[in-house]
Amino acid sequence: MAEPVRKTVGIIGGMGPAATAEFFARLVRATSADVDQEHVHVVIDSDPTIPDRTLAIVGGGPSPLPKLIAVARRLEAFGAELLVMPCNTAHAFAPEVAAAVSIPLVSWVSEAADAITPLEPRPERVGLLATTGTVASGVYQDALAARGIETVVPTEPEQADVMAAVYGLKAGDADQPRVREVLESLVERGAEAVLLACTELPELALDGVAVPVIDPAALVAARVVDLAGGSARQAVPAA
Amino acid sequence: MAEPVRKTVGIIGGMGPAATAEFFARLVRATSADVDQEHVHVVIDSDPTIPDRTLAIVGGGPSPLPKLIAVARRLEAFGAELLVMPCNTAHAFAPEVAAAVSIPLVSWVSEAADAITPLEPRPERVGLLATTGTVASGVYQDALAARGIETVVPTEPEQADVMAAVYGLKAGDADQPRVREVLESLVERGAEAVLLACTELPELALDGVAVPVIDPAALVAARVVDLAGGSARQAVPAA
Repeated sequence: MAEPVRKTVGIIGGMGPAATAEFFARLVRATSADVDQEHVHVVIDSDPTIPDRTLAIVGGGPSPLPKLIAVARRLEAFGAELLVMPCNTAHAFAPEVAAAVSIPLVSWVSEAADAITPLEPRPERVGLLATTGTVASGVYQDALAARGIETVVPTEPEQADVMAAVYGLKAGDADQPRVREVLESLVERGAEAVLLACTELPELALDGVAVPVIDPAALVAARVVDLAGGSARQAVPAA
Repeated sequence: MAEPVRKTVGIIGGMGPAATAEFFARLVRATSADVDQEHVHVVIDSDPTIPDRTLAIVGGGPSPLPKLIAVARRLEAFGAELLVMPCNTAHAFAPEVAAAVSIPLVSWVSEAADAITPLEPRPERVGLLATTGTVASGVYQDALAARGIETVVPTEPEQADVMAAVYGLKAGDADQPRVREVLESLVERGAEAVLLACTELPELALDGVAVPVIDPAALVAARVVDLAGGSARQAVPAA
């Protein structure tokens, strides 16, 4: 078997730094390697000064797009051959970021939505736990609708609580019991699976829920290892 | 109080990738920040193709120095203003790496040796758990001797077992009971504290030992956050 072509992975990071570190660790764990040299080459720009994504989308804050493009271009100049952006909310800006570079940007949203489709029975309605920016941008509603799946989003007060929990997690407070209550409310309103579409949320222990709770990060990590020519530990869904 | 000048931290990584990811996560945890934007800017080049450090020092393998210098220079060109290398064995090459760039390289070895001196009572003999390359290079023996501390190293067969455990950890096998036995042998031979001078070793649970077991990574992380102008969560020793 021919040795696969190795590609350097660029991670557009800093949104937030803890989520970037966790995704990098997942990428390493998703790689089947007996020695250092079998891992994939990863370059990370964890620039925490990228403006808040949700504030830009719903609060009239400054756009993160100029910095996202600058980071993407710096990583390309560094030698990155594919990009990944471990921040769901930033994917509202993904088309513009992808258009600014000549290397592919793996879509977290598409990969996450693809994580739903192998479920048996396949859910008709999926709950969305995400930042207010992600919910308002509609990226997941569109991606799921394209796969014939309806999205169940939190009510406005519930969503405000989820957003407060995300900011709490960013500030280091992992005790956010309200997220589980909102998750259960989504299930009561018909969600047959729930997507953790914010890279900060998987820090919470959300086990013991009656429906599948899907953290797409492990799947995205395995997909990135595969695209980079590494050996992924778990099955990678077809592109 | 004037806002401290922020500096971009460059991490010379890939030795191994899991140790790089763990150090990055520690750097994030060591930062006192309520929002993403209060974190420090970190750039990581996790290049797993850097040749094995121990093999170069004791096994006649290719030198990692050309790649270490290439990574350091790439990070400097990217905008890094200080460098840190989360691999103890690579510190045998630290003077040459530091000389190849015009930004400072934080010495893991000096910081780790400084972690010993505040201990009360201050140990006269410190055990060294490290790769065979680190032990053979003498970097820790010299740094501890400069602080008036004697180093207790494993016997040759014990050292071979420690090295085998490090390669086992790199291959994902966290069950390495022999390391604890060697640690206890160092204590029997007079070590009043033991330094975990390999970034792979802290993965092991080594609690319940009769003497302090020092993992310098948290201290180095706090020091780097401080040097980068961030707010470190724990006290940072004087330079």
